[in-house]
Amino acid sequence: MAEHLSQSELDYPFKLLEYFNGFRVSKVIFSACELGVFDLLLKAQEPISAQHVAQELSCSEDGMERLMDALVGIEILEVETKDGTALYSSSDVANLYLAKGSGKSLHDMIIYQSQTIYPLWNNIADAVREGKNQNEKTFGLPSEDIFKALYRSEEEMLKFMGLMNSSWVLDGHDIVTAFNLSGFQKIVDLGGCTGALAREMAKAWPSSSVTVLDLPQVVEAAQKHFPQEDDAVEFQSGDFFSDEIPPADLYVLARIIHDWPEEKCVTLLKKIHDSCRPGGGVLLVEALLFENRRGPVTVQIFSLNMLLQTEGRERPPSEYTRMLEKTGFHNVQVCRTGKCYDTILATR
Amino acid sequence: MAEHLSQSELDYPFKLLEYFNGFRVSKVIFSACELGVFDLLLKAQEPISAQHVAQELSCSEDGMERLMDALVGIEILEVETKDGTALYSSSDVANLYLAKGSGKSLHDMIIYQSQTIYPLWNNIADAVREGKNQNEKTFGLPSEDIFKALYRSEEEMLKFMGLMNSSWVLDGHDIVTAFNLSGFQKIVDLGGCTGALAREMAKAWPSSSVTVLDLPQVVEAAQKHFPQEDDAVEFQSGDFFSDEIPPADLYVLARIIHDWPEEKCVTLLKKIHDSCRPGGGVLLVEALLFENRRGPVTVQIFSLNMLLQTEGRERPPSEYTRMLEKTGFHNVQVCRTGKCYDTILATR
Repeated sequence: MAEHLSQSELDYPFKLLEYFNGFRVSKVIFSACELGVFDLLLKAQEPISAQHVAQELSCSEDGMERLMDALVGIEILEVETKDGTALYSSSDVANLYLAKGSGKSLHDMIIYQSQTIYPLWNNIADAVREGKNQNEKTFGLPSEDIFKALYRSEEEMLKFMGLMNSSWVLDGHDIVTAFNLSGFQKIVDLGGCTGALAREMAKAWPSSSVTVLDLPQVVEAAQKHFPQEDDAVEFQSGDFFSDEIPPADLYVLARIIHDWPEEKCVTLLKKIHDSCRPGGGVLLVEALLFENRRGPVTVQIFSLNMLLQTEGRERPPSEYTRMLEKTGFHNVQVCRTGKCYDTILATR
Repeated sequence: MAEHLSQSELDYPFKLLEYFNGFRVSKVIFSACELGVFDLLLKAQEPISAQHVAQELSCSEDGMERLMDALVGIEILEVETKDGTALYSSSDVANLYLAKGSGKSLHDMIIYQSQTIYPLWNNIADAVREGKNQNEKTFGLPSEDIFKALYRSEEEMLKFMGLMNSSWVLDGHDIVTAFNLSGFQKIVDLGGCTGALAREMAKAWPSSSVTVLDLPQVVEAAQKHFPQEDDAVEFQSGDFFSDEIPPADLYVLARIIHDWPEEKCVTLLKKIHDSCRPGGGVLLVEALLFENRRGPVTVQIFSLNMLLQTEGRERPPSEYTRMLEKTGFHNVQVCRTGKCYDTILATR
């Protein structure tokens, strides 16, 4: 996205046509992931034919060949022809991020994007018209309670948790080390989901104790489906809107504020301020817009995603600062990580 | 798509995440086009606020602001802040290709991609599994007769015709001038749809007479919805599979062969060979794959699109050459235009 749409586009709009094609490139990668192509290629450890892949994955040979050829074009797979047969092999990038097994796998993120976010975006024009999320139109779900929609079935809740889990695999370390948090003894990650970010935090700041607070069904699913041996974090069930918030030195709100309108965020931040121990603080983890409205483009697009799915939005640092100061926090410090998610630290 | 997925992706997969985001970038542009944002900005002739655009287009202000900000991020719009209000203006690229009025407008292509192709691609994994088109699953249409599916309603047929029309606006001139066609007196464009390519041909080769042959309902719609004053081309109704093919010196098959399996293509080419006058020929217009299977990536993705929507595929030059020679044509010459569509000329 970095390349400017230059004047040469006026002669022939190559870049524009590439943007038009974007949805198909996404789905080429997503569908290969869903069908298990990258897992099979990693397991095979040697170049294999499309026929072989098709047989193993119960797919048509013709369809698989076209899919794998497109993945070669995107440079995610490699191909060589031997005795007239095309043999495909995976790339390091695919093995690391697209196959299921790797510790850095984005498999769960892809499944959620492909099966939930892609259909939602078919209704983006209506979201812009109506100024509200499209859970009802897309999935037949009432749009008033967004987490009822997001967690409409255990399967869907697990997919969402997988998304959260795999995005912290990418950005977690940078986020938790953006500020020196060693002074905060008790850390509570509000809405901490599978605990992926909390574990990064416990690893980076071993003298702190880290607790994940989330809805009962989320805590149950986290422990059942995303278990961790000798887990460094504790889980606690609760609803941070309706239940009491446990006292702590640092509260983490990672991709929570962006789900809600300002009024609800202010109510939550006030409640956190009241529970926060003296000398404590709050760490917001969000993708930050630039103040000048010119980017980053991924965050601008996330903000449209929030429109499609939630009651919230992405914001520039100034809006978070204003909300934090309005609710009694001080010393607001912003750190852009250079990755997708950034952090803001404020003290009580 | 040109950038290689390099080793630096192993540290952080920026490019891969950009690919994941591709569907959202497509839909940002598509939805702005559907809502009429580019038309309004072109008409306004001066920077205007998102509030103004939202009011004019009966959209929510919040949604419109987010959409226009994302278009700024993609560098399709520009923004400046004046007295605290963000004012947006269009770019030359948007005025030329995305607004409706311009002679080079891709508006109709975008509508078809957004409303028909995007939902079809949600079923790409099933297409690869089953090795067949997904018209039935996506639109509830029988998949046996692909043009019954493509032309399932007048509205849908018109959208498809708009797609064809606007893609020849881009590539038409390069296609018709790739070879010297001045020696062919009577040219028949089989399945010539709105006549856009045929008109380019008549303009480039004014001493030839050019006729478009297409299904009766297509000819009727072409004359009603895509009329041209002092039209240089004639229209004739017919089904080139079931009816007789009129004698001519040159037959054009533009994006026809790629709709069908080899057997049906060979039958059609034989029939054309029989009708072709001595010294005549056939001009195929298709997006050509490389022989080495390594690209072009857009054509590899078109081939998956053909799987989703038709019974055909994209092919490398060798396959067209083989089919042409099998059906009695000679002197097969291939010209890659460097744009989306290429041409192959063969003589009887």
